[in-house]
Amino acid sequence: MRILHTSVVDRLLRATDRLVPPRKAHAHCDLPCGVYDPAQARIEAQSVKAIQERYQNAEKTKSAGETVEDYRTRCLGIKEERANLVKEHLWVLWTDYFKPEHKEKFPELHDLFWNATKEAGLAKKSQDPGQGQKLLDVIDQISNIFWETKKA
Amino acid sequence: MRILHTSVVDRLLRATDRLVPPRKAHAHCDLPCGVYDPAQARIEAQSVKAIQERYQNAEKTKSAGETVEDYRTRCLGIKEERANLVKEHLWVLWTDYFKPEHKEKFPELHDLFWNATKEAGLAKKSQDPGQGQKLLDVIDQISNIFWETKKA
Amino acid sequence: MRILHTSVVDRLLRATDRLVPPRKAHAHCDLPCGVYDPAQARIEAQSVKAIQERYQNAEKTKSAGETVEDYRTRCLGIKEERANLVKEHLWVLWTDYFKPEHKEKFPELHDLFWNATKEAGLAKKSQDPGQGQKLLDVIDQISNIFWETKKA
Amino acid sequence: MRILHTSVVDRLLRATDRLVPPRKAHAHCDLPCGVYDPAQARIEAQSVKAIQERYQNAEKTKSAGETVEDYRTRCLGIKEERANLVKEHLWVLWTDYFKPEHKEKFPELHDLFWNATKEAGLAKKSQDPGQGQKLLDVIDQISNIFWETKKA
Amino acid sequence: MRILHTSVVDRLLRATDRLVPPRKAHAHCDLPCGVYDPAQARIEAQSVKAIQERYQNAEKTKSAGETVEDYRTRCLGIKEERANLVKEHLWVLWTDYFKPEHKEKFPELHDLFWNATKEAGLAKKSQDPGQGQKLLDVIDQISNIFWETKKA
Amino acid sequence: MRILHTSVVDRLLRATDRLVPPRKAHAHCDLPCGVYDPAQARIEAQSVKAIQERYQNAEKTKSAGETVEDYRTRCLGIKEERANLVKEHLWVLWTDYFKPEHKEKFPELHDLFWNATKEAGLAKKSQDPGQGQKLLDVIDQISNIFWETKKA
Repeated sequence: MRILHTSVVDRLLRATDRLVPPRKAHAHCDLPCGVYDPAQARIEAQSVKAIQERYQNAEKTKSAGETVEDYRTRCLGIKEERANLVKEHLWVLWTDYFKPEHKEKFPELHDLFWNATKEAGLAKKSQDPGQGQKLLDVIDQISNIFWETKKA
Repeated sequence: MRILHTSVVDRLLRATDRLVPPRKAHAHCDLPCGVYDPAQARIEAQSVKAIQERYQNAEKTKSAGETVEDYRTRCLGIKEERANLVKEHLWVLWTDYFKPEHKEKFPELHDLFWNATKEAGLAKKSQDPGQGQKLLDVIDQISNIFWETKKA
Repeated sequence: MRILHTSVVDRLLRATDRLVPPRKAHAHCDLPCGVYDPAQARIEAQSVKAIQERYQNAEKTKSAGETVEDYRTRCLGIKEERANLVKEHLWVLWTDYFKPEHKEKFPELHDLFWNATKEAGLAKKSQDPGQGQKLLDVIDQISNIFWETKKA
Repeated sequence: MRILHTSVVDRLLRATDRLVPPRKAHAHCDLPCGVYDPAQARIEAQSVKAIQERYQNAEKTKSAGETVEDYRTRCLGIKEERANLVKEHLWVLWTDYFKPEHKEKFPELHDLFWNATKEAGLAKKSQDPGQGQKLLDVIDQISNIFWETKKA
Repeated sequence: MRILHTSVVDRLLRATDRLVPPRKAHAHCDLPCGVYDPAQARIEAQSVKAIQERYQNAEKTKSAGETVEDYRTRCLGIKEERANLVKEHLWVLWTDYFKPEHKEKFPELHDLFWNATKEAGLAKKSQDPGQGQKLLDVIDQISNIFWETKKA
Repeated sequence: MRILHTSVVDRLLRATDRLVPPRKAHAHCDLPCGVYDPAQARIEAQSVKAIQERYQNAEKTKSAGETVEDYRTRCLGIKEERANLVKEHLWVLWTDYFKPEHKEKFPELHDLFWNATKEAGLAKKSQDPGQGQKLLDVIDQISNIFWETKKA
């Protein structure tokens, strides 16, 4: 399945990937280790949307040996897990990375995370890739704020 | 703690980040959903190295209310978990993403993953950030191959 | 170890426990099943505080066959897990149970959960039962709001 | 969904909740921290029964965007997890909290826990809320014994 | 259900089980504790195949209170978990137990593990006990090598 | 480290291993899949004892790059996990495999499992391989009963 549309921007991005070493990735822990990255949530949300797309095209994307019903049952189970991981990564970022001074500068912070994690919950019930895209969009909003605070 | 060294390349990369939408991230599942990304392993490996650095600078990085001994005990426990996640993400990538045709083109594939996951195991026993860097380096080798196969 | 202080209120409560069937408890899931209860977070927070107390009285509370150092190492590891469970239960409650209308009525909702989960993070670094009590107090504030919304 | 029937006893209980601070909750660990509470198992069993009820009323309780079949598939997956948690909490209580002197006083202890965890296993196969109620009833029997031992 | 075919070899094996204390089993950890055993992967693979057989005979093996559809949905979910455990145990064995000298003596080692874990992935999509048998066969090949290295 | 003492019985057993294909292993799930094996608990208990031995010989068994203190801290953390797995496998066997007719024939069943899981709990606090051996012994008693019921 094609996940990345080969837009001009995307091709530029790929070109960039080849020129410079891959972007440093970031995680977390309560040590704290100081490593965070919204990419963790985004990766799982990509999976969620990809599963919704495959659910829609079950006939084509399922393997030869399984029925459409069984394939969709597996879609639902795996999507449930992936959506949980989205919530998990977002919650960690919200509580562990963001500080009161960030909240002051970005007063929408709490609502953004609340909506994003609620959207991840909705993803469990929805087989519509449009819903998955909404989840990705709100994660991107959070990501933009995150990288703003890193620039400071 | 400073994780990203502000090298020229890094600043160029940051500039790029601001110009283009963030790089699409990739994950996995056995559906399969087709979403993979070595960044997942790398993020956790960054944590491993950051913890090794903090272990070395325990006096400075610990919080006021805990002893150096207790802080280091927590370092060890959290590093154990993070190193496990590194292994997990690498194993998934090896088994689920890579196909025989990749193996043919990159015959070093198996050994790379074997060494990388063994290095992640060593990270549990080592408090040396140099060891963590070796882990990051072998993950970067895998990452380069991964992105090569994506270009194809 | 005595966890419950035998205050008058407590004794009344115990008397009540004997007269009426135990209070119905509540949990959750994204089905959603509609079952929630702040008691889940509180139970784990009680553990956190009890571990902090035992850490302080390690000589007396450790078993005969282990050293004080080993006992405390185990305290730290178990406290880490319990504090994680506190965060987990609180995050679920915040995202899954509370609705915009609750937020309107209790505008402090987001900050309460942010502070409570941050306090749970601090519990990993603190061996002071006073800190554990602060965690319990903020959970009780959340609990009060929760039961207010249930009355409505 | 209404989970609590507004019986007289229940209303008395609610009134009590408002008069006295919430009942102290209890958990566990092998430290041991000394904090235990059968409420943890009961909360998850409430979820199990609530899911069985929703499975029966799938048409009404499902969200607009999902089919009855998909909703029920999710019911089964989530019920499986919740029933596992019931077993887990009961096993911990049986092994970690109860002591030989309790066993002497309550010789039915082992059979009660065996039956309760077996009932939790049956819950995975049953979509009948009556079965879930049987699970709750046996947990309540355990709970009564637990609180008896606490009074001593 | 009959899982073990009562072949002559099997009966001899059973007889042996009664004469000598049960074979010492082996596990692992990165301490490392030095305890490993391919039986861990094999046990879970037996489950995978048993589930595939039960899926085929759903009418007979399901419990009275559940529909064939619901039983099969549960089959798929549980098989997914068991197949994950197969992969997990195999990956650990590959990275943690096997050393370069083993690789030299058994150059097929990497491919065997790659194929075995890929076969475990296929098991999620397949309801055919023949596929499960293939998974068992490749695990037995690994097991033979493992016990060869232990003899040395 | 030598885990298996080369007793005569052990050498006979090894010889047997070479003559006959490895003993079929067994696991479980609530499907149920009908696959069970006490070896799962025993493998983890072997790890527990091996860790206790290594704790005692920390100077010799630790790797070059870590202090004795850090090595022992890791011993404690990993032993905690392994002991949990012992409990888990035993609880599953007790609830899911054994039936009332087994209980009638082996009236000591409940107490055996209670003692075994309590012994696994004690293993977290004990650094004495003798304690680990006691855990193995009680698991072997359970194992004997298990295989008796399988012969029937």
